[in-house]
Amino acid sequence: MADSSTNMRLRLPLLCIILEVILIILFGTLVEYNHDTDAKLWNKNRTGPRNDYENEFYYRYPSFQDVHVMIFVGFGFLMTFLQRYGFSSVGFNFLIAAFSLQWATLMQGFFHGMHHGKIHVGVESMINADFCTGAVLISFGAVLGKTSPVQLLVMAIFEVTLFAINEFILLSILGANDAGGSMTIHTFGAYFGLMVTRVLYRPNLSKSQQRNSSVYHSDLFAMIGTIYLWMFWPSFNSAITNYGDPQHRTAMNTYYSLAACTVATFAFSALVNPEGKLDMVHIQNAALAGGVAVGTAGEMMLTAFGSMIVGFLAGTISVLGYKYLTPVLESKLKIQDTCGINNLHGMPGILGAVVGAVTAALASKDVYGDGLQRVFADVETGKWSPESKGGFQAISLAVTLGIALFGGLVTGLILKLPIYGAPPDTHCFEDGLYWELPGEEEGHNELHEVATPNEVEKLNS
Amino acid sequence: MADSSTNMRLRLPLLCIILEVILIILFGTLVEYNHDTDAKLWNKNRTGPRNDYENEFYYRYPSFQDVHVMIFVGFGFLMTFLQRYGFSSVGFNFLIAAFSLQWATLMQGFFHGMHHGKIHVGVESMINADFCTGAVLISFGAVLGKTSPVQLLVMAIFEVTLFAINEFILLSILGANDAGGSMTIHTFGAYFGLMVTRVLYRPNLSKSQQRNSSVYHSDLFAMIGTIYLWMFWPSFNSAITNYGDPQHRTAMNTYYSLAACTVATFAFSALVNPEGKLDMVHIQNAALAGGVAVGTAGEMMLTAFGSMIVGFLAGTISVLGYKYLTPVLESKLKIQDTCGINNLHGMPGILGAVVGAVTAALASKDVYGDGLQRVFADVETGKWSPESKGGFQAISLAVTLGIALFGGLVTGLILKLPIYGAPPDTHCFEDGLYWELPGEEEGHNELHEVATPNEVEKLNS
Amino acid sequence: MADSSTNMRLRLPLLCIILEVILIILFGTLVEYNHDTDAKLWNKNRTGPRNDYENEFYYRYPSFQDVHVMIFVGFGFLMTFLQRYGFSSVGFNFLIAAFSLQWATLMQGFFHGMHHGKIHVGVESMINADFCTGAVLISFGAVLGKTSPVQLLVMAIFEVTLFAINEFILLSILGANDAGGSMTIHTFGAYFGLMVTRVLYRPNLSKSQQRNSSVYHSDLFAMIGTIYLWMFWPSFNSAITNYGDPQHRTAMNTYYSLAACTVATFAFSALVNPEGKLDMVHIQNAALAGGVAVGTAGEMMLTAFGSMIVGFLAGTISVLGYKYLTPVLESKLKIQDTCGINNLHGMPGILGAVVGAVTAALASKDVYGDGLQRVFADVETGKWSPESKGGFQAISLAVTLGIALFGGLVTGLILKLPIYGAPPDTHCFEDGLYWELPGEEEGHNELHEVATPNEVEKLNS
Repeated sequence: MADSSTNMRLRLPLLCIILEVILIILFGTLVEYNHDTDAKLWNKNRTGPRNDYENEFYYRYPSFQDVHVMIFVGFGFLMTFLQRYGFSSVGFNFLIAAFSLQWATLMQGFFHGMHHGKIHVGVESMINADFCTGAVLISFGAVLGKTSPVQLLVMAIFEVTLFAINEFILLSILGANDAGGSMTIHTFGAYFGLMVTRVLYRPNLSKSQQRNSSVYHSDLFAMIGTIYLWMFWPSFNSAITNYGDPQHRTAMNTYYSLAACTVATFAFSALVNPEGKLDMVHIQNAALAGGVAVGTAGEMMLTAFGSMIVGFLAGTISVLGYKYLTPVLESKLKIQDTCGINNLHGMPGILGAVVGAVTAALASKDVYGDGLQRVFADVETGKWSPESKGGFQAISLAVTLGIALFGGLVTGLILKLPIYGAPPDTHCFEDGLYWELPGEEEGHNELHEVATPNEVEKLNS
Repeated sequence: MADSSTNMRLRLPLLCIILEVILIILFGTLVEYNHDTDAKLWNKNRTGPRNDYENEFYYRYPSFQDVHVMIFVGFGFLMTFLQRYGFSSVGFNFLIAAFSLQWATLMQGFFHGMHHGKIHVGVESMINADFCTGAVLISFGAVLGKTSPVQLLVMAIFEVTLFAINEFILLSILGANDAGGSMTIHTFGAYFGLMVTRVLYRPNLSKSQQRNSSVYHSDLFAMIGTIYLWMFWPSFNSAITNYGDPQHRTAMNTYYSLAACTVATFAFSALVNPEGKLDMVHIQNAALAGGVAVGTAGEMMLTAFGSMIVGFLAGTISVLGYKYLTPVLESKLKIQDTCGINNLHGMPGILGAVVGAVTAALASKDVYGDGLQRVFADVETGKWSPESKGGFQAISLAVTLGIALFGGLVTGLILKLPIYGAPPDTHCFEDGLYWELPGEEEGHNELHEVATPNEVEKLNS
Repeated sequence: MADSSTNMRLRLPLLCIILEVILIILFGTLVEYNHDTDAKLWNKNRTGPRNDYENEFYYRYPSFQDVHVMIFVGFGFLMTFLQRYGFSSVGFNFLIAAFSLQWATLMQGFFHGMHHGKIHVGVESMINADFCTGAVLISFGAVLGKTSPVQLLVMAIFEVTLFAINEFILLSILGANDAGGSMTIHTFGAYFGLMVTRVLYRPNLSKSQQRNSSVYHSDLFAMIGTIYLWMFWPSFNSAITNYGDPQHRTAMNTYYSLAACTVATFAFSALVNPEGKLDMVHIQNAALAGGVAVGTAGEMMLTAFGSMIVGFLAGTISVLGYKYLTPVLESKLKIQDTCGINNLHGMPGILGAVVGAVTAALASKDVYGDGLQRVFADVETGKWSPESKGGFQAISLAVTLGIALFGGLVTGLILKLPIYGAPPDTHCFEDGLYWELPGEEEGHNELHEVATPNEVEKLNS
């Protein structure tokens, strides 16, 4: 089913090996254990039994593992909803995530983790690398089924780099708060991906339309992804907040936001269907928007009440987006968004940024007490005021959108070069191009023969 | 495949939106951050670096996440064993759990978490809310396939309320121990659900019999649920015990109980089959009974030895129940128990309550030392004696059964009203009524056409 | 589909019940709570609020749960790739793991956990029991599809015992480091299993060849296993290292090793395929070899750089092994290795042992500072030198290989007795022998009829 144009035999190994060798060399040159992972540093001046429970590992590792599950199982299985693209969904997700987390360690370290010329790594850098990887996987959702693994790796190279730059501007220069990444991860990943897919617009994608849909069991596999993302989102948003009350509060705010979002999703999914039937696309995706939308404000004193309002809005917006906006984006703006990332990450990410700006602008010593500077680190500088903080949060959103769209444009143009083995319009959403497919059980040998004999003949020639 | 009587277009959105708005208003009025989630309270009188590792988050959040997985993946996928009801199993589980955990926060807070007129929330209340949700999902198992989502939400409203009342009586008035909920969760959820399904008895359910069974891959999806419930049950039972030894001991007792239970389940599953073949229904369910049965005594000095005996008994009872009791309950008592919750939660729950009463009655300063009052908080009052404690545990079981059965009766009668869009007897265990079903792969378009053309015609008219 | 020779009705229940009764008696006689799980001991001499956060539970329980997921979901689902053996893969995995962890508690306790004649248990012994179980499940991979559950239990009895002996020699006598079990778990489990399958060689296995392969959805189920093993391997390798920096460092080293391994796996999987297509067998298995290969050195100052080199090598070796070595082992050495455990656990395990020996030989006070003796406990004895340490590590590998191969030989011969109900050559890789299979959906009743009518007739007679 593969012709030479999509043959990965040289392209993929060559790119993978070159990239990994570069990574290894750069790690060898630049990366060092940080204070909590280094045998010498952690045990320095040890007098009596050291309080090992103060090692950052015990504060963050359980959250890290939850985030890790979201990245590899959550994103990976969420995208298995396509009937013939399950291997690629989980598999390419696996590949580009494994690459991106290494590259992100370097890029994020380079921009905001250098100590005397070295990048220091530990559990926090692992979480941040996974976060950056999340943005790449969001963008993957937009181009799902229409790209070769080589294209995806190239996209990851650029996106990770630009992610690190944007994150540096937001967190280090503008001093923005964005612990759960409404802006840095979701808004960035979504609009980067949407711009890439716009540039890669395929006018004849309808030729693969029959595969651009789910079957019964593929939808159940996708629900594995959905539920894991949903359950562990509280860990995601709280993974790198300050210790103590912020981490605890963020997890709880996210929990309530998601619960309200899910109820709203079911409500609107039934409402927009003429027969009142629920749509798996909404349940799989929109129910998660509540996690996105409290990604910035979750660590603040948003309250359960505020979180639930935000979650309810996010679920509503997301379902309506799937129903009414996605078709328009495709027909009018030529944005072919396979997973509907605009509805799950784009609009809810912007909502999250706005909620974050407003919540920050309402912060006060009255409400936060001595905890104020544990949420807003820049309080200590004295230049801080709630209003200016809210303003910087808003500016951060604009910067993010700008870098994402511009970066997506450039990356899209690079990905358009005809050298990556992208699938033809007739064979998008098809595992058979890049994977050895197993045979079928007796009596089922017709299962994957959607391609007509003619097409197969042509491709095999 | 849906006719107007099961159309959810207005009913479901209306109920969801009204409920969520009420929840949001009540949260806005009544709910506050507790000491460990509030920025001001946690950082009060901070002198030098506060010991953030003492925040309850670090003691309970990993357990909470395990419980969360059990509620959403465990229960959700366990019920996907039905061939045509996977969307509803995972999906309705998702909806009613998301609603119930919010409603439970309020009800449990109202009955035993008020501080100066406010409900204080943190990771412990999140665990308790998930626990209460668990009881609703147990009851869901009894009526699985025979109820509309609107009915399930209405059931959840009543069940959560009664759960909170029963929990209040047991823990606050009777001073019972029940950290893992043998009584409050499993016995309550099971007998509430069994009574509901008794009241909703469908004499013509046999018309849907061909869908009331599994297929090969649906059984594998169900095993995902089983295994997650099994693995994380130690976290479930230990999630809200006291810190330190009780939490550690509870997890370990549960671990051994489940291991012994699994061996017993395989043994008896093969033994009761004429050809010695194992039955997936037993493996999926009975292997979990060991977790239920140490839900009360797990935190006590039950020992690994005691835990294994209890687990072995629970697995045995459960398999025998599936084989011999369930058919009798259906034919004689008209109890149609789709998932066999009597065997997984009902009888093992009662066993757990009895084991808890006996273990409590055997407690002594000799065995527990200074740890006695960390397990039995009421020791401090001075009125405590092992015998009286054992007695109160027994009374607690009786109270639980009474409230569950009476509550199930009333709730069942309310659910019998013909206004909720329940499925007709001919279309139970069928996703198509409430879900947009995906098409099938070429050559498979016959996959979900179990309904005869006649029926479809009638339904579509 | 089952004839009397494979009937489990008496054999399986009898063995299970006898084993469990023996286990319960031995637990009752020998096992006690350890200091951190016993109510009396933990609360002894309590003055003021005890620091419950120092209980081992909070250091190790999250890691334990991750390991637990690997054992039950990871191994269980990894083996569901076979088209008709999913029930057995997950189910028998469940059974032998539940048995093995109990038996391992006793055997490991007997050899290196006795205190005044009693075995003390807590979260560390739970992790160790799960580890030992892992070795049994590795061996299970070699004989997958060709053994009855009774055979598997008998294998587990012997393998657990020999595992504990080997572990005792390595850790207690030779003082080797092997926190993640490159030697004790992976090398041991692999070569034990390979020897067992060699002894059980089936010359006519080709009669079942048509079932010894995957179908589309069975490969997706297997990816659930793969991804969970991959994600939680950092927890596996770090679960029983010392607190603080070693645990933190081990998790991170494993994280980077696996990432590099995954990139290598994709590269070489495409490279060795004539059409450049990826092979699910490689992705499912070889991508995990990086975790195996840092099982010994992970806790040492291997650095991210070193970990990535090791991971890259492991992935490469593993893919090449699947492609070129496995067929040769089968045709020349008569080793029928269903899951290719030699490629995933065997060779990477040896690599891990060698890397561990080299890294240990390069250890110095210079690099480790005061942390040296927290990694190499035997430093304190004064007899320690890096060179001797490296030597003992190498000897440990040799001992492991010797015990595994000899033990596998003896166990294989015992398993060859014709009393266990092993499947005939014509019905390997077939759930129907040991499980009640569900019917199929209408229009699909041919799904599992691979056996010809003739065969069925013969078997049913």
